[in-house]
Amino acid sequence: MQERLIPYDRLSDFTRSVFSHIGCSSEEAALATRALLSADLRGIDSHGVARLSGYIRLWEVGRVNARPHIRVIHETPSTAVVDGDRGLGLIVASRAMDIAREKAKQVGTGWVSVQNSNHFGIAAFHAMQALEDDMIGWAMTNASPLVAPTFSKDRLLGTNPICVAAPAGEEPPFVADLATTTAANGKLEILQRKNTEAPSGWVQDEAGNPSTDPNILKSGGALLPLGGDRDHGSHKGYALGAIVDLFSALLSGANYAPWVPPFPAYVPMPAQQPGKGIGHFMGAMRVDAFRPVEDYKSHMDQWIRGFRAAQPIRADQPVLVPGDPERVAQAQRLEKGIPLMETVIRDLQELADRLNITRLD
Amino acid sequence: MQERLIPYDRLSDFTRSVFSHIGCSSEEAALATRALLSADLRGIDSHGVARLSGYIRLWEVGRVNARPHIRVIHETPSTAVVDGDRGLGLIVASRAMDIAREKAKQVGTGWVSVQNSNHFGIAAFHAMQALEDDMIGWAMTNASPLVAPTFSKDRLLGTNPICVAAPAGEEPPFVADLATTTAANGKLEILQRKNTEAPSGWVQDEAGNPSTDPNILKSGGALLPLGGDRDHGSHKGYALGAIVDLFSALLSGANYAPWVPPFPAYVPMPAQQPGKGIGHFMGAMRVDAFRPVEDYKSHMDQWIRGFRAAQPIRADQPVLVPGDPERVAQAQRLEKGIPLMETVIRDLQELADRLNITRLD
Repeated sequence: MQERLIPYDRLSDFTRSVFSHIGCSSEEAALATRALLSADLRGIDSHGVARLSGYIRLWEVGRVNARPHIRVIHETPSTAVVDGDRGLGLIVASRAMDIAREKAKQVGTGWVSVQNSNHFGIAAFHAMQALEDDMIGWAMTNASPLVAPTFSKDRLLGTNPICVAAPAGEEPPFVADLATTTAANGKLEILQRKNTEAPSGWVQDEAGNPSTDPNILKSGGALLPLGGDRDHGSHKGYALGAIVDLFSALLSGANYAPWVPPFPAYVPMPAQQPGKGIGHFMGAMRVDAFRPVEDYKSHMDQWIRGFRAAQPIRADQPVLVPGDPERVAQAQRLEKGIPLMETVIRDLQELADRLNITRLD
Repeated sequence: MQERLIPYDRLSDFTRSVFSHIGCSSEEAALATRALLSADLRGIDSHGVARLSGYIRLWEVGRVNARPHIRVIHETPSTAVVDGDRGLGLIVASRAMDIAREKAKQVGTGWVSVQNSNHFGIAAFHAMQALEDDMIGWAMTNASPLVAPTFSKDRLLGTNPICVAAPAGEEPPFVADLATTTAANGKLEILQRKNTEAPSGWVQDEAGNPSTDPNILKSGGALLPLGGDRDHGSHKGYALGAIVDLFSALLSGANYAPWVPPFPAYVPMPAQQPGKGIGHFMGAMRVDAFRPVEDYKSHMDQWIRGFRAAQPIRADQPVLVPGDPERVAQAQRLEKGIPLMETVIRDLQELADRLNITRLD
């Protein structure tokens, strides 16, 4: 797998020009670019620019609206439901988080469920917006059905991630962003490219038997909920994925369970959809709605330092705090550039040619 | 392991007399009894009446206050922090949920973080209170440090459960109540009594090596976060347990991480505690703060029926919805009685004699 390092600014300019080309306003093209490339910066390569051509194909088939009228369709002082008008999830989710933050300023917390949206990139980008206001941010989304609940052959849930981002004082923030499966689909794609077996508990075959074949999803297999099997708590991963579906879609009127629209534009949409588009759920909680910010921050620093100082099992692998690996990746990649596989670069060049815009290099 | 079936009413009368004896008001003795025995009814035997003598020992050493002045010490329209005044968590958490529900009635959602409390029984009892008002309920609590974060030898977190209870229409409610470990401590205790090995991924030894010894916690071992090891997503279980600690204690001013007070009254309290007692976090979200209740309920019914109708892997094991096994247990146990091991009954008889109240039979 050959890789090349691309400076962040160059990748950002290119991505912005793509979003502008399909009709995004310059402000929204910049926002969508920041949201998308936050994945590449944080080392979540499966969710970043590698998906750009996928987003554009959704626009080409009419499933993404580049000029959405994003609006609140129901609200109370602490809640809202947002209709994303088929906009890019990158933008819709960010606007929904703005609304959650505004409500938190007024009444302590804000909770926004979103219908009629599309894939929103990584949850952490949206949740972390709340950190700017000394708020705790939540972000969830449902996604294409690839996951079989415990005891099931059928794929009924997406990898349905949950992110909670909480500020600290002198320490960097706590940022936990996790797919509710044993491994996210991106991890499986890496094994496919390397032609390596998957660990036990990641996937099952069409009949529901344990499998280690990273390509098994192409022949009716499924990702497994966090835990892998019943003995190891897969019913808990299934419950967590279900919770994400409830908050993202049952509260908003988006599609849920097997009816969530698939990401690849060539996969036909499910018939008789019960809702609109993909659903997200955003939350913002003002720290000072609970206690003085400085008290919270000093204890949060103590909490974080306690975990970092824990006795490691192996001397060469210190105990980490959620968000540590992604922060290290971001610092490295801002300095040295973002490693893109040649296949991804080729895909971006083809995209540029098709849209008749300047190539990446 | 000999067991005997005890009718719910008899167990309830006995438990109420115990709580009354230590000084609880008659209303609070009844509430604490309902909360505690909801575990026995729902089949979570480790968290029910088997712990009654443990609660009383905490009262005997002065750690539980039977006449607490439970009060709000900080609030906004959608949030509150409650000081539990060292009351029984069974009561404190229930009062905190009342406050969350009241706030949800006013502004759509209510979120209450609790300090200075004790163990609250099962999370589901508290979260399910919200169902009465067509609200979604959340309950979390931190707990005695028994869990080692990924890569760590040290025990820094409790089994820190998360419960979300969501109403449905014609279907029974969705109730997901899960420890953020591969297996809860109660499951390990069952294996200890049976003298059976634990599955891989449940526990590690003092040096951090994988172990299958169910007694390993007595020699410095630890429970493992949901996932079990890094390859199977233990960093996600660790992050979830950490999130529970943040909401329960960092927002409230309770103790956190290794400083959470241990449940057994004979274990010395940690020195230099950073907060007060154990922490909980309760939430209530009005469904109609998001969409009309009838719309939500009809889609929730469709969601639930879709999962129940999924193709099972084995014909004799249908796909379940979170809350199904506990609801079945409750129906059986209300009818036939609650199975108590003779050791538990003996412990309750000794408790009765010590308190000079009428024995269970």
